[in-house]
Amino acid sequence: MPAPRFEIHHHASGSQARAGTLALKHGTVRTPAFVPLATRGSVKTLEPRDVQALGYEMVLGNTFHLFLSPGPDLVASFGGLHEFMRWPAPIITDSGGFQVFSMGHGSVADEIKGRSRSGKGGGNESSGAILGIDEEGVRFRSYIDGSLYFMSPETSMSVQARLNSDIALAFDECTPFHVTRSYTAASTERTHRWLARCLAWHQTNAPPDQLVYGIVQGGVEPDLRAESAQTVAASAAGGVAIGGSLGQDKPQMHEVVGWSTRELDRHAAHKPRHLLGIGDIDDLIIGVGLGIDTFDCAMPTRLARHGVAVVPDPENRWRVDLAKARFKASQEPIMEGCPCPACSAGFTRGYLHYCARSGETTGPRLLTIHNLAYVSRLMADLRAAIASDTLAARSHQLLSGHMPRP
Amino acid sequence: MPAPRFEIHHHASGSQARAGTLALKHGTVRTPAFVPLATRGSVKTLEPRDVQALGYEMVLGNTFHLFLSPGPDLVASFGGLHEFMRWPAPIITDSGGFQVFSMGHGSVADEIKGRSRSGKGGGNESSGAILGIDEEGVRFRSYIDGSLYFMSPETSMSVQARLNSDIALAFDECTPFHVTRSYTAASTERTHRWLARCLAWHQTNAPPDQLVYGIVQGGVEPDLRAESAQTVAASAAGGVAIGGSLGQDKPQMHEVVGWSTRELDRHAAHKPRHLLGIGDIDDLIIGVGLGIDTFDCAMPTRLARHGVAVVPDPENRWRVDLAKARFKASQEPIMEGCPCPACSAGFTRGYLHYCARSGETTGPRLLTIHNLAYVSRLMADLRAAIASDTLAARSHQLLSGHMPRP
Repeated sequence: MPAPRFEIHHHASGSQARAGTLALKHGTVRTPAFVPLATRGSVKTLEPRDVQALGYEMVLGNTFHLFLSPGPDLVASFGGLHEFMRWPAPIITDSGGFQVFSMGHGSVADEIKGRSRSGKGGGNESSGAILGIDEEGVRFRSYIDGSLYFMSPETSMSVQARLNSDIALAFDECTPFHVTRSYTAASTERTHRWLARCLAWHQTNAPPDQLVYGIVQGGVEPDLRAESAQTVAASAAGGVAIGGSLGQDKPQMHEVVGWSTRELDRHAAHKPRHLLGIGDIDDLIIGVGLGIDTFDCAMPTRLARHGVAVVPDPENRWRVDLAKARFKASQEPIMEGCPCPACSAGFTRGYLHYCARSGETTGPRLLTIHNLAYVSRLMADLRAAIASDTLAARSHQLLSGHMPRP
Repeated sequence: MPAPRFEIHHHASGSQARAGTLALKHGTVRTPAFVPLATRGSVKTLEPRDVQALGYEMVLGNTFHLFLSPGPDLVASFGGLHEFMRWPAPIITDSGGFQVFSMGHGSVADEIKGRSRSGKGGGNESSGAILGIDEEGVRFRSYIDGSLYFMSPETSMSVQARLNSDIALAFDECTPFHVTRSYTAASTERTHRWLARCLAWHQTNAPPDQLVYGIVQGGVEPDLRAESAQTVAASAAGGVAIGGSLGQDKPQMHEVVGWSTRELDRHAAHKPRHLLGIGDIDDLIIGVGLGIDTFDCAMPTRLARHGVAVVPDPENRWRVDLAKARFKASQEPIMEGCPCPACSAGFTRGYLHYCARSGETTGPRLLTIHNLAYVSRLMADLRAAIASDTLAARSHQLLSGHMPRP
C-alpha cells in the first residue's frame, strides 16, 4: 500500500492546466480525471467492472447518504466501502456537508452549483429537515425514516474513516448564493474552523493513507475565496476541493474557480485539486484549463436515467433528449461515429426513446455507458493535449463541438 | 438463411426427454433450452451481449405489449424486432392471447400458471379492460392510454409477421382453471378454429422462414388435452406450445403436461415443443423429462428485480429472498461456489440486501445475471445428461439440491 502521492508530469503553457498521477492506497488516478458518482454505493445501472472498462479509476461515494443507510458500522463490518460495493480502485467520499445544508437551505440547493448538482442535493432530501446548526455541528432528521441525526466535523471524518475512502473531504458549510457577504464571510470562517477540527480528528484517528482535502469556500467574493484558498493551502490537508456557491451563471462560475486556483497555484501548487459537483462538458474543458485535477458530477449518469445522451453539440449544452417525441422513429445512432459499446452495438435513438418512455431499464444502462464513455474519452483527450502542449488549440476544438478522440 | 429445422440427436431412456438443435432463421438453439423474457423489447437490466454471454440463444418478445407500444409498424420500420432491440439470435413471440384474456379473466390470471406467470399477465394490465370476446376476436382497451384495440388470430399473426420473429405462436384463448368442463371444451374448440385461421393467414402472408407453433389447450381434462394435442399435431403448425390452465398445483401441472407430450410423442414426435410460462427449477427438470424442448418464464428475471436469488435449495423452492432483514449484515456470497459473474466478483448477500432495500439498480442487474446464469447452467447440465443417457440419475440429484455443473 503506497503512501498517497501526487505528481505533476506536464504543465500546459498559457494556462494553469496540469497533467499528472494521483497515487492513492487503492490505485493510481491519471489526472485530470472525471469521477463518476457512486452516491449510495453503486454507479447506478453499472457493475464495477463496467465502470473500469470505461476507463475510470476513481468513483465518489456520498457520506451523507451512506451515513443514513446502510450506515458506517455496517459498511465497516464488510471491511469498508471498497469491499462492500466491490470497487477495487480509489474512492473519494463527499463530506456530507453539501447534502446536510441543502436540507436547511431548501430550494436554494439547486442554485448552489447550478442545475448540475440538483440531483445530489434535491429531491430525495425533501422529507428530511435540518433542526439546528451551530458551531458544534448540524442536527437533522433523516429523509428515510425521520429519525434524528447529528453531524459534526468529527462525525463526518469518523464516517469517512469507517468507509475507508482513499480521499476524505473536510466537513464544510456549502454557502448558498443568495446570502449576504457577511453571512458568506462568517460561514467561510466556520468552514475553516471545522477544517482544523477535521484535521485534528484525522491526525489521531484516520485509517492508514487516507488523504484529506480541505474545502475552499468564500462564495462569489474574490477576497474571501483568496483567503479561503490560502487557509486550505496552509493547512495540513493533503489536497484541496473547491465548493460552495460558484455564482449565478457559467462565466461567473469559471471566474470564481479561477480566483481559487490562481491562489492555489501561488500557495499550494503541489496539492491535488477537486472541483465539487461540476461536470458539464464545457465546464470540464474550461476547468482543466483552470488547473483542476479531478471533477465529480451527476450529469452523465443522471441525464442517462432521463433519456438524455451526451453529444458534441455546444449549442444544446452537449445534450440530446431522446425522450422527446421527435426521436420516436429515429434510426440514427445515439451519436454518429461514437466508439462506445452502446453505439457500437447499433442501438438507435428510436430504441432509446422507446426505453425512456416505456421504462425499460436497459435504456438507462445504455445511455449511462454512452455518456460516461464520452466523458472518459474527453478527459483522456485533454490529458493527451496537456502532455503534447496543445491544450489551447484542442480545448478550442472541443468547445466548438469536435468529438473527443477515441 | 437456412429453413427452420428441428433435429433430435438424443433420446433419454426411461423418459420422454430428448436433446437436439432447433435451427431458425437467426441461428440455432440447443434444446432443451430456457428462453429468457424480453417482454417489451429488452431483457430488463441487461444488454443483448450480456444475455448471449450467459449462454442464451433465444429470447421471448411479447406480442400484446409490443402491439400497444411501440407498435408493430414502428418496429417494422426498424427492420423488425431483432434490429430494433439489437438481438442477433432467434426470437419467439407470444401470441398475445394470454395477456388479452388475463384482462378478461381478471385475477384468475395469476392462477392459470400458478404464481410463476403473474408478472406477465397481472399488474400492468389492471387499468386495461376486455370489452368483448366473440368468434372473430377480442376487443379491449389499452392499459397504457385507454384507447381501443381489436385482436383476432389474423391480427396476432400480422403483428408477429411485422416483428419478424423466428417463431410465432398461434392466437389462443388461455382457459382459466375455475371454469366448467363445457366452458373449457368450447374454448379449446375455438382455439383450434383460431389455429386454422392463423395458419391460413400465415401461409400467404408470413415472412420467410417464420415457424408457427399451435397451442395445446384443454384445461385439466385428459381427453380434451389429448384431442387438442392431436389437433395441433395434425395441423400444418411447425411446432407445438402447451398453454392454458395446467392445474392447481405442481403434481397436477406435471400430469397435464405429461398427457400432452405423450400424445405428441405418438402423433408429432418430430415437432419442437414449448411449455408456456413455466420455469421454476423443479418444473424445468421435470419438464425436460416429459419431453419439453423449450421453456419461457418470468421467474429468474422478475425475482431478481425483487431481490430474490436462485439457489440450490429445494426446500425453499430454489429461492432465497435477500431483501429479508436477516441478510442485512450477511457477508456470504449470493451462492457458495457459484461461477457466475456476480458471484465471481464477490458481491455479498448483504450488499444485494442493501440494493434491494435502497433501490440501487445495480442490484437487480447482478441478481438477473446470477439467476439467468443458474438456469443456463441447469439447462446445459440437463442437455449433457440426456446426451450421456444419465438423465434419470442427474435429475434426481438436481431435484435434491445439487448445483448445476459450471
